[in-house]
Formats: sequence, structure tokens, C-alpha cells
Amino acid sequence: MFGFLRRPKVRIDIPRLKPRENTTDYPKVNLAELTPEVLPYLGQVAYVQLAIFEELSAAIGSAPTVAAKQALAPAATQALDKHERLVAEIRRRVDTPAEVIEPFTAGIDRYRAIVKGADWFEQLASVYLTAGILDDFFTLLAAGLPGDIGPRCVAILDAETGRTAIVGILSEATDADAVLGSRLAMWGRRVVGDTLLVARSAIHLTGNPESDEQRIEPVFTEMIASHTRRMDRLGLTA
Amino acid sequence: MFGFLRRPKVRIDIPRLKPRENTTDYPKVNLAELTPEVLPYLGQVAYVQLAIFEELSAAIGSAPTVAAKQALAPAATQALDKHERLVAEIRRRVDTPAEVIEPFTAGIDRYRAIVKGADWFEQLASVYLTAGILDDFFTLLAAGLPGDIGPRCVAILDAETGRTAIVGILSEATDADAVLGSRLAMWGRRVVGDTLLVARSAIHLTGNPESDEQRIEPVFTEMIASHTRRMDRLGLTA
Repeated sequence: MFGFLRRPKVRIDIPRLKPRENTTDYPKVNLAELTPEVLPYLGQVAYVQLAIFEELSAAIGSAPTVAAKQALAPAATQALDKHERLVAEIRRRVDTPAEVIEPFTAGIDRYRAIVKGADWFEQLASVYLTAGILDDFFTLLAAGLPGDIGPRCVAILDAETGRTAIVGILSEATDADAVLGSRLAMWGRRVVGDTLLVARSAIHLTGNPESDEQRIEPVFTEMIASHTRRMDRLGLTA
Repeated sequence: MFGFLRRPKVRIDIPRLKPRENTTDYPKVNLAELTPEVLPYLGQVAYVQLAIFEELSAAIGSAPTVAAKQALAPAATQALDKHERLVAEIRRRVDTPAEVIEPFTAGIDRYRAIVKGADWFEQLASVYLTAGILDDFFTLLAAGLPGDIGPRCVAILDAETGRTAIVGILSEATDADAVLGSRLAMWGRRVVGDTLLVARSAIHLTGNPESDEQRIEPVFTEMIASHTRRMDRLGLTA
């Protein structure tokens, strides 16, 4: 669909993930071969941010207290802001951002239905964990984009998420309820698999399964390590 | 509950409504006697803006296209921004904004359930029409607040709403479907009554029904005139 935009791949190092979350550095894996074309990349990541906004908005809508709504509001605003900045990047290239995004909505919406969660706490855990993995993934993938768009996307994705409020809400709830804690731990282990499948589907495969796996494997290993740190932060056993 | 904050009422003129929507000026009715105390006022209007955000978020969630989601996103952001600015005003006075807001959530949530609408178009028409009436109402009511908080609230409420996108979506839909147009016209006539009831419940009544009515009546007449102009803008017969 975007074949007319195809361009020679340039080998560049992937950026490090957000320093504020770093406990170990990411491997300097070369992701250039895995990165999709610019517009499909932007379309997917823009819709992911819109989806994060929608999930957070739903969580605000069903929050049990006004204080919880207020605590979650900045995270919703930040996701929408990222979506709008990514749409602005699409608009610098084409006039119809919705058409660039549309091909990715059905797949991402199916995924959202799977990781939605059965109640408000699972919903919050999902947003925190899945948005974390997807932000990491698209940050890493940005390294393969040509010109200055990669660093620009990293800057957008790396901005404040506002999601530490979720850590506060969930820690308080699981501290008071051990059964909830073990339920959320199971839930967290479950959503990671579905999220990695979505990430995988966004990757541009070369058609050589062996070399594709060699490239993907270390990236996913590190993404899982980052996920484990987020589980820790929530007080959950990964 | 907020009796300790009671202060002498000062008579001041009410501000004009947003010039960009003006086709006739509002009467210079004196609303000082009707305005509630500062904190209950801020608590109510802050929750109204949060409710507008939630309704818009729900409409974004159920929008049929990405283009529609994007068109509605700024309106959601603006409402949340207003909510946060109003919460900041509460925080300048007390440390617990949630406690100031909480007493008003049940009543406003009941009202929201009534004006929710049966489908996406009714939902959008509701947000556009009811948010318009409530913005007008709380703008007028701000005149009775003491000191500089009145003008500050007017500035917050008067900021860009982003809701013209709704006019575009609904006009296009009703142009293509006359039956939808007449259904939405009926719906618009219905929600105005419920919204004026909510407005009325926010008013500080003096206990003298005759003088209360004399004060309320011209304000509500003008609010209905403004509502009619919004119906016009949607292409609906009021």
C-alpha cells in the first residue's frame, strides 16, 4: 500500500530507552531492518496512543471516586497529546492522516478487546503494562526510520506519560487486598503475551525466518525485562 | 457544609456571554443573589467539565471512523483542561478538591444518564447542546462570585471549546438523512428541559419564590435563546 514510499534502509543504532526507567541499558541491537515504512509506522503508533487515551478515558469514566478520576486525567491528556503530535507528523507528509491510520484500527481494536480486563483494576493494570510495552517497542523501532523522524518520534513517545498515578492506585489496592494482588499478577503475565504479538505484527519481516528471529529475540528479551520492572513497581510478581 | 465561608453578597453586573457566539447581548440581570458560595460553585462547575470530558471521550470511543475520533479529540482535551484549571482554583482555597466536588457527582451523574442519548448522534447532540447551556449558565452565575474569582472563572469557561467539530459531523449526517434530522430536533428539545432543571438546582434560592422567579426568569429566557441558536447551527428546528 505504501510501496511507493519505499527507500533504502540505513543502518543506525537504536536509541536507549527512557533514562528515568533505566536500570539496565538496552542492547544496541540494529533494528533498522525490522522497522516498517514511515507512514505505516506513524499510523500504527498514532492509533496506539489514541487507544491508550480511550482506555484511560474509560477508566476515568468508571472510576469509583472523583479523586481517582483526577489522578488519571493527566495520563489521558498525555496520550491524546502524543496522538495529536504523531498525527501532525503524518500531516507533514500527507493530507489524510485518517487514511494512514485506518488500516491498523481493526487489529489493534481486536487486541484491545482481549486485554481489556474484567474490572476497573484489571483495566488499569492493562493500560499501565501494555502502554509501557508498546511505548518501549515503538521507541526502539523508531531507530530504523530515515532522517530526523526517528528522533522526533522518540521525543514524542519519551514525554511524560502521567501513568505513575496508576501505580499509586493499584499499589494501594493490592496492599489492602492480597487476593487482588495475585489476580492482577496473573493478569499482568497474561497481557504481556498478547502485547508482544501485536508488537510482532508491526515488524517488517525480511522473509528470512532465521535472521528475523536473531534480530527480534534480544529486543523482546529486553522488552520483557522492562515489563518485569513495571510489574515490580506495581508490587506484582512477574 | 460551606456555611463558614458565607460572605456578604456584593451586587455586580453579570458579564456578557462569549462575543463569538453573540447575536444578541445578554440582559444585565443581577445574578449576585442567585450565585452559590465560591467552593460549591467551583465544585459543581469542575464536575460539569469533567462530565463533558467523559461524555466526549465516550463519543470518541464509539466513533465510527478515525477521522471522527480525531475531530472530537480537541473538544475532549479542552473540557479536561477547563476541569483542571477549575480544580486549581479549588486547590488555591483548600487541599482536598475531590471533597469539594464529591457532593455534586450523584446529581450530575443522574442527569447525564437521562440525557445520554440512544445512539452516537444523539450522544453528540447532547454534548453540544447541554455543554453549551451549562457553560452559559455557569458563566452568568460567575458574576455573583466575590473578588477576582468571577472573572477568572469566566475566562476559563470562555476558552475555546473545540465543539464546532460536532456541528460539522451532525450537519453532514442530518443533510444526508432527514429522518435523523427530525429525530435529533426532538432530542434537542427534550434535553434542554432536563438541563435547565440541573441549572436551577445549582442556584442559591433566597426563599422568596416571587423574587427568585423574577431573577431567574430573564436568565433562563436568554439561555433558551442561546440554545435555539445552537440548534440552528446544527440545522435543527428548535
